[in-house]
Amino acid sequence: MNVAIIGASGYTGLELIKLLINHPTFKIKYIANSTGEINVQDLHPCLKDLINIEVSKANAKDVSSHAQLAFLALPHKTSMLFTKDLLRLGVKVVDLSADYRLDLNTYEQFYCKHEDKNNIDKAIYGLPEYFKEDIKNTNLIANPGCYPSASLLALLPFIDYINTNIPIFIDAKSGVSGAGKNLSNITHYGHINENCFSYNPFQHRHMPEIQEKIKVIKNTDVLINFVPHLLPITRGMLVSIYATLKNDKVDIDFNKVLEKTYENNEFIRIRKNPVDIKSTSGTNYCDIFVAQNNNALFISSSIDNLLRGASSQALVNANLMCGFEENVGIPKIAYVP
Amino acid sequence: MNVAIIGASGYTGLELIKLLINHPTFKIKYIANSTGEINVQDLHPCLKDLINIEVSKANAKDVSSHAQLAFLALPHKTSMLFTKDLLRLGVKVVDLSADYRLDLNTYEQFYCKHEDKNNIDKAIYGLPEYFKEDIKNTNLIANPGCYPSASLLALLPFIDYINTNIPIFIDAKSGVSGAGKNLSNITHYGHINENCFSYNPFQHRHMPEIQEKIKVIKNTDVLINFVPHLLPITRGMLVSIYATLKNDKVDIDFNKVLEKTYENNEFIRIRKNPVDIKSTSGTNYCDIFVAQNNNALFISSSIDNLLRGASSQALVNANLMCGFEENVGIPKIAYVP
Amino acid sequence: MNVAIIGASGYTGLELIKLLINHPTFKIKYIANSTGEINVQDLHPCLKDLINIEVSKANAKDVSSHAQLAFLALPHKTSMLFTKDLLRLGVKVVDLSADYRLDLNTYEQFYCKHEDKNNIDKAIYGLPEYFKEDIKNTNLIANPGCYPSASLLALLPFIDYINTNIPIFIDAKSGVSGAGKNLSNITHYGHINENCFSYNPFQHRHMPEIQEKIKVIKNTDVLINFVPHLLPITRGMLVSIYATLKNDKVDIDFNKVLEKTYENNEFIRIRKNPVDIKSTSGTNYCDIFVAQNNNALFISSSIDNLLRGASSQALVNANLMCGFEENVGIPKIAYVP
Amino acid sequence: MNVAIIGASGYTGLELIKLLINHPTFKIKYIANSTGEINVQDLHPCLKDLINIEVSKANAKDVSSHAQLAFLALPHKTSMLFTKDLLRLGVKVVDLSADYRLDLNTYEQFYCKHEDKNNIDKAIYGLPEYFKEDIKNTNLIANPGCYPSASLLALLPFIDYINTNIPIFIDAKSGVSGAGKNLSNITHYGHINENCFSYNPFQHRHMPEIQEKIKVIKNTDVLINFVPHLLPITRGMLVSIYATLKNDKVDIDFNKVLEKTYENNEFIRIRKNPVDIKSTSGTNYCDIFVAQNNNALFISSSIDNLLRGASSQALVNANLMCGFEENVGIPKIAYVP
Repeated sequence: MNVAIIGASGYTGLELIKLLINHPTFKIKYIANSTGEINVQDLHPCLKDLINIEVSKANAKDVSSHAQLAFLALPHKTSMLFTKDLLRLGVKVVDLSADYRLDLNTYEQFYCKHEDKNNIDKAIYGLPEYFKEDIKNTNLIANPGCYPSASLLALLPFIDYINTNIPIFIDAKSGVSGAGKNLSNITHYGHINENCFSYNPFQHRHMPEIQEKIKVIKNTDVLINFVPHLLPITRGMLVSIYATLKNDKVDIDFNKVLEKTYENNEFIRIRKNPVDIKSTSGTNYCDIFVAQNNNALFISSSIDNLLRGASSQALVNANLMCGFEENVGIPKIAYVP
Repeated sequence: MNVAIIGASGYTGLELIKLLINHPTFKIKYIANSTGEINVQDLHPCLKDLINIEVSKANAKDVSSHAQLAFLALPHKTSMLFTKDLLRLGVKVVDLSADYRLDLNTYEQFYCKHEDKNNIDKAIYGLPEYFKEDIKNTNLIANPGCYPSASLLALLPFIDYINTNIPIFIDAKSGVSGAGKNLSNITHYGHINENCFSYNPFQHRHMPEIQEKIKVIKNTDVLINFVPHLLPITRGMLVSIYATLKNDKVDIDFNKVLEKTYENNEFIRIRKNPVDIKSTSGTNYCDIFVAQNNNALFISSSIDNLLRGASSQALVNANLMCGFEENVGIPKIAYVP
Repeated sequence: MNVAIIGASGYTGLELIKLLINHPTFKIKYIANSTGEINVQDLHPCLKDLINIEVSKANAKDVSSHAQLAFLALPHKTSMLFTKDLLRLGVKVVDLSADYRLDLNTYEQFYCKHEDKNNIDKAIYGLPEYFKEDIKNTNLIANPGCYPSASLLALLPFIDYINTNIPIFIDAKSGVSGAGKNLSNITHYGHINENCFSYNPFQHRHMPEIQEKIKVIKNTDVLINFVPHLLPITRGMLVSIYATLKNDKVDIDFNKVLEKTYENNEFIRIRKNPVDIKSTSGTNYCDIFVAQNNNALFISSSIDNLLRGASSQALVNANLMCGFEENVGIPKIAYVP
Repeated sequence: MNVAIIGASGYTGLELIKLLINHPTFKIKYIANSTGEINVQDLHPCLKDLINIEVSKANAKDVSSHAQLAFLALPHKTSMLFTKDLLRLGVKVVDLSADYRLDLNTYEQFYCKHEDKNNIDKAIYGLPEYFKEDIKNTNLIANPGCYPSASLLALLPFIDYINTNIPIFIDAKSGVSGAGKNLSNITHYGHINENCFSYNPFQHRHMPEIQEKIKVIKNTDVLINFVPHLLPITRGMLVSIYATLKNDKVDIDFNKVLEKTYENNEFIRIRKNPVDIKSTSGTNYCDIFVAQNNNALFISSSIDNLLRGASSQALVNANLMCGFEENVGIPKIAYVP
């Protein structure tokens, strides 16, 4: 099965290429970015001798003549324009941007005017643990954001036990690659090395994404108070969730809750000791740990922000969309040490 | 005025030496560790050509013949034995260990049996913003822990506005130097580099210290839920506090609260943007930032864990104990970049 | 084909496990360390759900009843004792220690008395680019050291052009994992983070290994002046070689020399821009770059110290020993970003 | 004495401000960058509460009305235009750029056309250990580059013993702050973190600077082969020099040579163990170590690239120019740990 990657210059585009080079069924036939006219080995020197494709200037028609499925690793707004054309041309789409993750109103409130309103309701939110059957039957995946992936997988099993009238706090910590490959003050080595800070507290656009998906999945209104932090590491994400239990739910064995929720999910690992970032770096795993102090609940999850938070989860979704097992070509061996 | 440093091998001992080398009034006359028989320049090669003192095997009597004030940078339990003797010999003590921070019962519950019960009530908790007058009139300072320093300075101004029936969460992030200079798996480079994880969630011994001091200072019972994390940086600490406001306190200007609380305190800086670790590294400053989302409150503070969290705060206390201005010889210029 | 890993606790043992989990032909049937009595998932938590084997206390007889080939990731001296027994029991051995790398005299001068003199001459030095045919026909591989792997691959192509009467300098830079997983001052985070230094200049035991192999391969006596440095990174190695050209060899195209030397070697990549560590991290590649300034020659090579410098090269050797293609199960996709 | 800093936005400008805030004699009266209209506390948030000056758009006339001495932390070419005007207006200048470091021909070959040819010969190269008397009697200091500072201080004592017909190699390793505060691919965290690489081998503009100053100071022609590397640390520099001794000079005690050369220089420390970066970070020290292997010589030096490599050396020069002791306000306490 032939696939295309549009948006090959960034980190998630590179991760897609790296994953697909060794995929047994998907074959990369088309790689594009906004300029073209470069070999992919020059765009990403680490790929030397591994793949030999000229990068094209992105064009939907060309995609459709090369591939049956396209991964879009594009900024929001750019992504919806390609998606609209690709779907019309019969190409399946896994969109890694935010463009199809939210309902229309929420999207337009936090991002911009939407230019592909027809498809927004058809998109399936690509969190496989919760939407597997829908994913198998769609042509359009809205691949979750990195923070929502780690937050939802950790928080959803406990929603029924949490007093949702009391604020839920998510203290999320991301590696610098989450800020992308573009140059900015925040990603300058001298700024983030030996440093750590929160940014956009209570104002990050992943906050409504988390809230909306809890409503969809658990039919519960919650107020998420989301504070992201930047860590001086390149890849990986640690999410620390703090919530208050309902008074009648303090005697539950929350490890059992976790185990039960995810008993048939091979990419979730329940940990008895606090999770760390390194054990999931390089993999599609989400590791989860839970601890309790009276009515206080602490849930900690770890993912690779570029893989489970983007590219490997996109590939799991693509596998499912195309009728393959979800684990085909999905990495499980961590970058330890 | 002649001073002694007992416990010179570790990081806080080194920081004390570095601070006191340039202090205009205190003169280092005695440096000790558990073995002696080494020059301080060989113990800490970075001190070459800066100070020339033979390190002694620690002995209280020798201290009293050399110095009027001693800084103890010792493990808990060892510290109380020296303190008892030093006070009897007329030496003022700034104790950087936990031995005199807590009331007896709490101490014995979380640490060990106390061997100097007579002095425990005479010790003053060395948080200068809250105990300045007491500090001036004591012979024994219990220097606060690093996590409590950053947590209390950030949280105390808001206690009156917080609904203390609802859990308060402290997500604290410390550089690796907080784990000390001794070898351990946690401080092995291959373990913590490019990594981040929580440890001892809800079980750290700084949790009761924070709780007790809030009770003492604000006469309020609170339940602190404290989760420390280790960051892949050498020095510095970021504390993120999450609390729920009382319903009738959501319309307060919390920046004003901060400014009012600390208006005459030169080592607190109120920040309009989220604080970062680098801006306080190398200094005695505590930077604080506050943000609100309906009834959810986020307070973020940053300190140098080895300075404001230990050695420079110890020196502020020593200054005050000895009748000097608190800022004499106290560093304010950050290690930026 | 069943294989054993002896010495599973360290980094190279872990890398071997990670590589062999996905190997299509080799099956891990036996894992041992010096104590046993632990599951490999508890020894290395990153392996959770990936492999389920009880770690044994190392025993040669048990190895021979489980496996036809053993990887020894042991300290020198320990390794030769197992090797002697394993060969006698008919088990092929890939020894990652130094025990069979050198001729007897050199070994005993730089390491210790040798206890398996009979086998020392039968061992093949496992640098596949130079000893491929011998590797295919041996039962005992002496897997090269990390520094020699990167140094020899970079230096050997130029020996004929270098004035070997003038000192050759190797300024080698290794990530901290090269110092192993054991606790030591050098691997304490506070010591190496934000730091860099040379160690054992002109005295490292990899210096005679490099010299001897140049003599064996090129029949040339050279004096290598080797200065290793430690870098504040976990994995990877950069080797910078400085040599003086013969007067009649300054007009050569040294890129062509490189390309010619390695034209049929898939794990060598000739770079037109200076090599970096990241592009080889996670792979078995050795990237090489060369530059010239009159009669001064600069050669720079990059490898993953734990893979090409140890475990993946060991697996290449095992592939060849067992009649498989050298690239079976060998990683090529780098840990970028 | 009133001083000005022109070029306050970059790292060396910031370091100058930090040093001068506490200087007992120099008072900062004017700070400028290319745009002005910002308070210095907003330009560098770490300076909050430490200094309160509005940053001006740089103007030579304004400088002369505020200050008797100006530090120029500007890019080359920009710097010479200000210098010309400032000298005419009677302001002493310490120029941290390359504009007055080289003789005219060399400058124009490696940089650009020179616009202030009259002053180029009057400038004194501000390496205090070698030009102290000249520095005391000039109005214009050409502050040395960071690589030349560390390289010259390490290499000059040995020139008489080295066979200069054989290439001398300098393998220099710099922290990322050496690349400045401007955004570039090389300073992006994802590029340099966990990485290391050489850049511009044999082509860096500090190579002719080193060569020329050896000629000036030792009246010896040498061919320096200079290869800079970037390290994943923020500040600090390690320089490893490799040279071949004259045949009749192999029996010299090179530690004695070092000690003799620098016996009255308080900012040089001779080390018996290999130098490291951390021990000089935050200070004006240059630490030097030497080792020998037959006729091969290894010299290793460590400096803080922003201090001894730029701003604190500039302040030493300013002290000397103005008749003060060289060590007034110069930092000696390292950023350890």
